[in-house]
Amino acid sequence: MAMSREQIMSTAIQHLNENPLASMAQLAEAAGISRATLHRQFSSREELMLALGRRAHEQWEQVQERSGVVDATASGDPEVIGKALDAMLAGLIEVADAYGFGLTDYAMLVNPELKRRSDELEEREIAFYAAAQQAGVLRADLPARWISNTVYGLLVAVRESLRRGDVARRDVPRLLLTTYLHGAARREES
Amino acid sequence: MAMSREQIMSTAIQHLNENPLASMAQLAEAAGISRATLHRQFSSREELMLALGRRAHEQWEQVQERSGVVDATASGDPEVIGKALDAMLAGLIEVADAYGFGLTDYAMLVNPELKRRSDELEEREIAFYAAAQQAGVLRADLPARWISNTVYGLLVAVRESLRRGDVARRDVPRLLLTTYLHGAARREES
Repeated sequence: MAMSREQIMSTAIQHLNENPLASMAQLAEAAGISRATLHRQFSSREELMLALGRRAHEQWEQVQERSGVVDATASGDPEVIGKALDAMLAGLIEVADAYGFGLTDYAMLVNPELKRRSDELEEREIAFYAAAQQAGVLRADLPARWISNTVYGLLVAVRESLRRGDVARRDVPRLLLTTYLHGAARREES
Repeated sequence: MAMSREQIMSTAIQHLNENPLASMAQLAEAAGISRATLHRQFSSREELMLALGRRAHEQWEQVQERSGVVDATASGDPEVIGKALDAMLAGLIEVADAYGFGLTDYAMLVNPELKRRSDELEEREIAFYAAAQQAGVLRADLPARWISNTVYGLLVAVRESLRRGDVARRDVPRLLLTTYLHGAARREES
């Protein structure tokens, strides 16, 4: 039975997460199809990577929509913002887990179309973090762009922790939220 | 005047931090030398990357030695551990800033020699984090390997923040220490 474009993309992602440098020949082999079949769907590795990047961005945008970060930003309400933050981080964990290799794939990060899209999505989050700071949910003494970059860095840590088997998947949301919000220092008893 | 091996390596690192996919031809051009000259020093891109990786590991090890993490681990003393932690993080920022591309270069990360070395250095840090947890410096409810992976992720965030110009270099140690130890949530007044 012929593999759909979607199925080929899903297999490619899985394989790239294990080996980010996989060639088209290796990706075809992993999908159990011939190179000719793969090339009929994606004329080059760049085209495949662009399609994977677009899909990752769609899912990223869906996370933003589902967690309501734009409305929360406009609301300025600490409770609404807090809930959107938790929901967004949980959703980003799933996207980072699914598209792990893309977090640090340099060719993808500098592709002009993907870069523009990712900048747009990121600006929404930066505005959201700034609103969270204004509402007193996040501390005000860190630049909002730094906060955004640390979320990205922690998602890389999530990907590595799962890839190496350092933590159980079920523990990740708690670990990320705790570390991100409260840090690694022992908390003073209040 | 001929460029020394050291000088070639320094120029290559600078260029790779801007363009992690730079070819040998591009690296030769950036150093202002011919490809033939570059190839006399490094017979292949792999050999150059291996040399850069070894140098990064030497500097990483020096950070561990200067900050005294091994002695601090053995001491079990919260004050000694706290000082070693601050010193180690400050040193790691410098290494991450200098060797930024290497943090996520997949070919370097899977090279067997570099992998073995990096595992050794990382195990020292994991033992140190575990000692910091036992001494009450770091919270005990996070796996030590997760703590180690989040430091790595935050160093990726440092690299990205500096590369994009999101934060001033002088602010980085404070931002990293604050975020890592205390998190991004607004702290309750105590």
